[in-house]
Amino acid sequence: MVSRKKIFVLGGDGFCGWPTSLHLSRLGHDVVIIDNFSRRRIDAELGIRSLTPIVSIEQRIDAWRDVSGRQLGFHYIDIAQDPAQLTALIAAEMPDTIVHFAEQRAAPYSMRGPVEKRYTVGNNVQGTHNVLCALVECGLDTHLVHLGTMGVYGYGGAGFEIPEGYLGVEIVDKAGERHDWEILYPTRPGSIYHLTKSMDQLLFQFYAQNDKLRITDLHQGIVWGTQTEETRQHEDLINRFDYDGEYGTVLNRFLVEAAIGHPLTVHGTGGQTRAFINIQDTVRCIALAVAHPPQRGDRVKILNQIAETLRVRDLAALVSRVTGASIENLPNPRKEAAENDLVVSNATFRSLGLDPILLEEGLLGETIEISTRFADRVDLAHIRARTAWSHEERELLGRQNHTVGARTAV
Amino acid sequence: MVSRKKIFVLGGDGFCGWPTSLHLSRLGHDVVIIDNFSRRRIDAELGIRSLTPIVSIEQRIDAWRDVSGRQLGFHYIDIAQDPAQLTALIAAEMPDTIVHFAEQRAAPYSMRGPVEKRYTVGNNVQGTHNVLCALVECGLDTHLVHLGTMGVYGYGGAGFEIPEGYLGVEIVDKAGERHDWEILYPTRPGSIYHLTKSMDQLLFQFYAQNDKLRITDLHQGIVWGTQTEETRQHEDLINRFDYDGEYGTVLNRFLVEAAIGHPLTVHGTGGQTRAFINIQDTVRCIALAVAHPPQRGDRVKILNQIAETLRVRDLAALVSRVTGASIENLPNPRKEAAENDLVVSNATFRSLGLDPILLEEGLLGETIEISTRFADRVDLAHIRARTAWSHEERELLGRQNHTVGARTAV
Repeated sequence: MVSRKKIFVLGGDGFCGWPTSLHLSRLGHDVVIIDNFSRRRIDAELGIRSLTPIVSIEQRIDAWRDVSGRQLGFHYIDIAQDPAQLTALIAAEMPDTIVHFAEQRAAPYSMRGPVEKRYTVGNNVQGTHNVLCALVECGLDTHLVHLGTMGVYGYGGAGFEIPEGYLGVEIVDKAGERHDWEILYPTRPGSIYHLTKSMDQLLFQFYAQNDKLRITDLHQGIVWGTQTEETRQHEDLINRFDYDGEYGTVLNRFLVEAAIGHPLTVHGTGGQTRAFINIQDTVRCIALAVAHPPQRGDRVKILNQIAETLRVRDLAALVSRVTGASIENLPNPRKEAAENDLVVSNATFRSLGLDPILLEEGLLGETIEISTRFADRVDLAHIRARTAWSHEERELLGRQNHTVGARTAV
Repeated sequence: MVSRKKIFVLGGDGFCGWPTSLHLSRLGHDVVIIDNFSRRRIDAELGIRSLTPIVSIEQRIDAWRDVSGRQLGFHYIDIAQDPAQLTALIAAEMPDTIVHFAEQRAAPYSMRGPVEKRYTVGNNVQGTHNVLCALVECGLDTHLVHLGTMGVYGYGGAGFEIPEGYLGVEIVDKAGERHDWEILYPTRPGSIYHLTKSMDQLLFQFYAQNDKLRITDLHQGIVWGTQTEETRQHEDLINRFDYDGEYGTVLNRFLVEAAIGHPLTVHGTGGQTRAFINIQDTVRCIALAVAHPPQRGDRVKILNQIAETLRVRDLAALVSRVTGASIENLPNPRKEAAENDLVVSNATFRSLGLDPILLEEGLLGETIEISTRFADRVDLAHIRARTAWSHEERELLGRQNHTVGARTAV
């Protein structure tokens, strides 16, 4: 049995935050959701919606009380824009743990244009800083668990296994003397979104060092899957499934394409290797991180929250095998290497007992459970990637969209 | 003769920005100052003022026109809060170069409390990002010259000469294979202010890589001195001299203490080694950086803008020798090592012809020129450091202020 904690889940209405809130509640913790519905607002802004129908937060909370007998707290706060309200709530409730998901999390959205770039930087950096600042102001020893991203490591192909946050390096000075350092893994983010999580790392390093805050940063891979044990208990508890060009991650797009009889659209050669984790394992990892905080005075605890790595073309082949869909290669709107290797250590979560669900075994169920069931809700107009990373890729994408437009009209 | 450029100076009303604007104008460039008077506003907020009397920006610009025959442009814009106005001005004027000083630049102010911490993060990170974002939006190849700080390297005592921004490291992987990388020097900022300049580095790395922006980042030491060749030409052109506990750098505090017959107050053992540069050399270095931009597609050009390094206690001894003042050791409000070595490469500026003014030679003139001349304007109440770095140092400082208060009342 876990020791009961008071836990704030910032961004607890979102794709990772909602199932995490339910999971932590079911484990017996006292969970308070803080959200500003930014994800729902962006849905409206982009004219998109989750493939799965999402009810209001009040209905979600009611449904959870009905099935579990447990009450979730909820406060509408914009943590980036309203630090005073955030600080007052932290001071009043004194949470043992804050799980922080409240960041704009889509790389393509963050690259859309100047407004979205600025929003992502302002929202993510200031939101994270406001939380840290509030903990110092309140003089609390609250454990902060932050969702980072594998993207802070960059996808350049290190040529060796990526460690958990820190890298041992050797420096040879001019006098030929050797110095051994252990440093934050040199970050090389590939989008504004990933950049903000890299900047978060510096914020965490500083506050852990200067104010002895206890911080865990979880560098997560691409999440796949939709439901967890908890979200399956009532239809009003269902989790988001995003498949649009901005928020839809690669597997979701493939699944929706397959469900509606469209070829699986692979950007570039599909040689990009990515790290993946199922949403069910995400919530388990968060619970493990909550249960194993660093000590006061420790450096930031960084864990890699991933289950496996796969090339995008191998993922496409897997989906094609399960669904029978064909595969089509399109130009890549991102500025990145066409092919990269990615080997990542997930030693800590493995040692804590993580036995992850792998794509090979979970994919078929996911396909049937979500993308086929809700296929009539698919909006084909929004499935394509529209955001180019820079002026160079924009030209490429312009040609692509022209071609695609001509063909889909047939 | 330099080639004439249109240059925006962001923060051109401030301590480094104003003399830089004049220097670039005198060199024949077309200079446009952009400022939101944040430094004047903070003066009012803290109840402090520059030892030297500062007239309005209009009077400053008029005085420069009178003595030089050259016109400075001026626009009141808050670059952090009003990106639209900034972008419109950049689009309309298409500057060849933007020199960016528009950041909150005092470490103690940045550590004062939650409001100042948040202001420093919001102002500095968003301001810098808005400039980068605007350049991409306008599709310009403008060269951005940013004032960084030596503080991004941390003061941990590397044990070897700090290179210019990039560090060659060797990684030995699990298989025993060696990998040579050249990385951004691992940053370990010691205050929120230094943290923001570390975050700026990541912004620059990203935009240079993703959008091929041409960026120079100047990691400057502590600036000493007040006047330059240009600011001496008219009393309305005089530069700021800050000596208060928030904005006054160590030498200025010593000089003012000496001028009013107060002991020189050294925090801790004075074993902290710092890098220094005279304001006259700052403006020369900026002009050199403007004249030697990186090429499109280059990584960020990082230069160390320093003349020499000195321990604080050696600086105190130097001032004591020149002025006859005694020296007093007080507790250190900062969280930092008591003693550190600091050896820094300034190879690039040396190779471009920098032959810097050293403290040993310039100190006496500075003392007579400024601190003695304006000694009647000194406000003793604001000279002490009041900002503690964390709860730990706050306790220390509480005791210190109590003691000092008791003694100065005698």
